Amino acid sequence: MTDFKQAMTNIADSVTEVLDDLLEQTEGSENRLLEAMRYSSLSGGKRVRPFLVVATSDLFGVARARSLRAAAAIEMIHCYSLIHDDLPAMDNDDLRRGMPTSHIKFDEATAILTGDALLTKAFEVLASPETHSDGAVRADLCLAFAKAAGDRGMVGGQMLDLVAEDKDLDLDVPAVTRLQRMKTGELISVSCEAGCLLGRASPKANGLLKAYSHDIGLAFQIADDLLDVEGSAEEVGKATGKDDAAGKATFVSLLGIDSARDQANMLSTQAAQHLDFFGGKAGLLQDLARFIVSRKF
Amino acid sequence: MTDFKQAMTNIADSVTEVLDDLLEQTEGSENRLLEAMRYSSLSGGKRVRPFLVVATSDLFGVARARSLRAAAAIEMIHCYSLIHDDLPAMDNDDLRRGMPTSHIKFDEATAILTGDALLTKAFEVLASPETHSDGAVRADLCLAFAKAAGDRGMVGGQMLDLVAEDKDLDLDVPAVTRLQRMKTGELISVSCEAGCLLGRASPKANGLLKAYSHDIGLAFQIADDLLDVEGSAEEVGKATGKDDAAGKATFVSLLGIDSARDQANMLSTQAAQHLDFFGGKAGLLQDLARFIVSRKF
Repeated sequence: MTDFKQAMTNIADSVTEVLDDLLEQTEGSENRLLEAMRYSSLSGGKRVRPFLVVATSDLFGVARARSLRAAAAIEMIHCYSLIHDDLPAMDNDDLRRGMPTSHIKFDEATAILTGDALLTKAFEVLASPETHSDGAVRADLCLAFAKAAGDRGMVGGQMLDLVAEDKDLDLDVPAVTRLQRMKTGELISVSCEAGCLLGRASPKANGLLKAYSHDIGLAFQIADDLLDVEGSAEEVGKATGKDDAAGKATFVSLLGIDSARDQANMLSTQAAQHLDFFGGKAGLLQDLARFIVSRKF
Repeated sequence: MTDFKQAMTNIADSVTEVLDDLLEQTEGSENRLLEAMRYSSLSGGKRVRPFLVVATSDLFGVARARSLRAAAAIEMIHCYSLIHDDLPAMDNDDLRRGMPTSHIKFDEATAILTGDALLTKAFEVLASPETHSDGAVRADLCLAFAKAAGDRGMVGGQMLDLVAEDKDLDLDVPAVTRLQRMKTGELISVSCEAGCLLGRASPKANGLLKAYSHDIGLAFQIADDLLDVEGSAEEVGKATGKDDAAGKATFVSLLGIDSARDQANMLSTQAAQHLDFFGGKAGLLQDLARFIVSRKF
């Protein structure tokens, strides 16, 4: 795992550099927006989604100059969703990645606009010729990201989550699986899909990576639920124990800790197996599948 | 102007039909999101931006099936910006287009997510093959819309506006012009640009439409400022007198009513003249330039 951790750090650093470039500051008073965009997106995080974009792209020999742009775009979308999720009207969180959330550091209006701007910027980056020389590939990237992030994907999942809380719905395992598939799974899947699009992967390769991303997406969420129960805010970098306090149905509340952990491990193993087809080339992605269920943050 | 008003109504109705199709409801609990997306985007409004997309596209013989999709996308972006602008943390408005704003009708969390979903959907629509057969055109549309709506465009302008209010900055005419150029002008310009991209306009035609859109964008904003002073909430469909109450620098507060009106009329005339090159074909766009400064809503 040492090589994997080194690779993960290297990719995370490269993505941060690209984000730093893409979020260049301005001279005008509107620079407050850029400051806030930079605050939320340059401040670390595991960079799991960017890692997936880059490691998948690597499988198909895509130039890093391209894959890192798509990786930066997915991270912008992820960061925007966290900023809006943390707002008082949503989860009302003060702490994120161990730092004050955007609306605490700046103010609520700035946080709303910052999320909006990061989401918009992601599409600007994807649609720019530097991301791929073929316009059809750029359009396909925009389409895939929009579907994954939109009303049938991430935002739809957030809505489901809110409705379940408001109406105090008793979700069962299939319902929680669907909710999490939309809320976090689609963005994880599109990270792998981006690599496939950039690298013009064969249908076979595409299918295997889709299966892989489905499994790690679910494993990632189960691991998150376990961390919410077992981790401390200090380790995890955000408030923990919140799901339980809110009486929220999670994989852990529905399956129990042991069964949830077994399920996550099973999915992680299965995810890695999908990629045996690629031989040693997919080692990093297979390591990631293991990392996702063993991480402490 | 009778033909013009009929054309405007026809295009507005067609755009509403396309939006109705694109925002198809779902079976799950997340349908609350679709309801809220439909509530804010099917409820009327002047549809000035969609009109610009379609009338510009018509100049180049673009099929309506295509231009109406781009028109729906720009309207989604416009509606998302209104929903977020109206939020309590932003302008805190209860009334929009004569109806309760999204966070009043639904709730604040739903309004935030609805704006996010509409913005995302706009890119899904632009990037879809139905919008144009050439992927490069679709990617160029996404790029142009993202730039116009993003941190250097609309959202940047909203940030400028907030900072000016927070810091009680004394904006002069060039500063207000820049702010409004970003906040509303870019989206008006990209509406014409969309028609040029879809119709593969010549550089000459493109330049003329760019000049036209710059002029009507500014004229539109001056007319808006005049309506805020002279109109009633009933006529305008949203609260009026707000700029003055907030001590906000506007074209009217800086130039005075008469001078502002002269300026708007001058820009409207100039805008129409840019399009003389197209002969009678540009009649609707020239009528729009006149309508923008004479409207009462």
